[in-house]
Amino acid sequence: MNDRTPLLTDQTPLPDTIEARLRRQLTFLIEVDRLKTILRQSPLAAADRRENDAEHSWHLAMMVVVLAEYADEPIDVGHTIKLVLVHDLVEIYAGDTPIYHPTMGADQAERELAAAEKLFGMLPADQAAEIRALWDEFEARQTPEARFAKAMDRLEPQLLNWMARGGTWLSPGITADDVRARKAMIGDASQALWAASKQIIAEGERRGWARPGQARR
Amino acid sequence: MNDRTPLLTDQTPLPDTIEARLRRQLTFLIEVDRLKTILRQSPLAAADRRENDAEHSWHLAMMVVVLAEYADEPIDVGHTIKLVLVHDLVEIYAGDTPIYHPTMGADQAERELAAAEKLFGMLPADQAAEIRALWDEFEARQTPEARFAKAMDRLEPQLLNWMARGGTWLSPGITADDVRARKAMIGDASQALWAASKQIIAEGERRGWARPGQARR
Repeated sequence: MNDRTPLLTDQTPLPDTIEARLRRQLTFLIEVDRLKTILRQSPLAAADRRENDAEHSWHLAMMVVVLAEYADEPIDVGHTIKLVLVHDLVEIYAGDTPIYHPTMGADQAERELAAAEKLFGMLPADQAAEIRALWDEFEARQTPEARFAKAMDRLEPQLLNWMARGGTWLSPGITADDVRARKAMIGDASQALWAASKQIIAEGERRGWARPGQARR
Repeated sequence: MNDRTPLLTDQTPLPDTIEARLRRQLTFLIEVDRLKTILRQSPLAAADRRENDAEHSWHLAMMVVVLAEYADEPIDVGHTIKLVLVHDLVEIYAGDTPIYHPTMGADQAERELAAAEKLFGMLPADQAAEIRALWDEFEARQTPEARFAKAMDRLEPQLLNWMARGGTWLSPGITADDVRARKAMIGDASQALWAASKQIIAEGERRGWARPGQARR
């Protein structure tokens, strides 16, 4: 997809009797339906298929509700949920960049920035700025809420990999050490969740669901 | 599914080295992966398949973020988002009950109550009560947040039906009047959104995407 990708509503624009600001917002809310079609690498626990970004984002939000008590710094739960709701929206145009992919990370920032401008620009300017600020906050990980949101983003696929008895832990060339390295930022948000994360990886490694690799921390 | 339906983790329990309360919470968070497999009647706008409950719940949450300004009474956005995140969880065991289905509504409450007890009961008691209270609040529609959450639940499939040029509006025996009757509770939360909803239905009716039926209000 690129700047010339048509909008979903180009063929079926909403009635122009709807007040202009609201019509713009509803048009954006239809366009983000595309998030349901962006596939991640993670296999579902409940069905034999890959997870999509919309399901993933909902799952992270549920995790925030249930696991917020483990945040090492106080977090605003509602704000943290907003961060996870919007954190993958740019993938609508930029696509998913698999965490264990050797090269796709190179131009990821550039692709996602262009996507953010196109997608958030559909909204009235005040809301475009609000959603963009949420996405920037998530990416920068400089607030307790952003660190916790990112920890959920790291922990959720780990639960799915556990249920798949390996999943993306068994990506080519990846060892349990690599998994630990990529998951370590869970510890920036919660020592308790990072402890559980390490227990899950260690037991996965013991069972052969991740390739052997000595723990780095 | 029923009370004897095994849990997803029965075959792959999480390591028992994880602290008991957290292990229970993570086990619940894996079980709710099933929400991604519960199909609704609504067709996606972005792909040729039906929507599932997890995607739907994410979409409602995004709508709360973008449309909260239209609430006729002040709402707590974070709390409203929590209501939509959990509102369909009981369908994991009770299944989806289509809004235009002639008979499935009869034992819906009973099926969903049993599902709530099984599913929320997986959590530590304090959190089971918290999630149950959110679900009860959504169902009762006695708070501004619950009325707004319900309005999103009514408005979202309407956007998808518009994009499908009919969708479930064309369910057997349903007219535009029936659609208006089922959507009218949007007006309990927001006159502006209800006005837009009526404009969408009226234009759909004009184009033959809903069977003719005189407006009741």
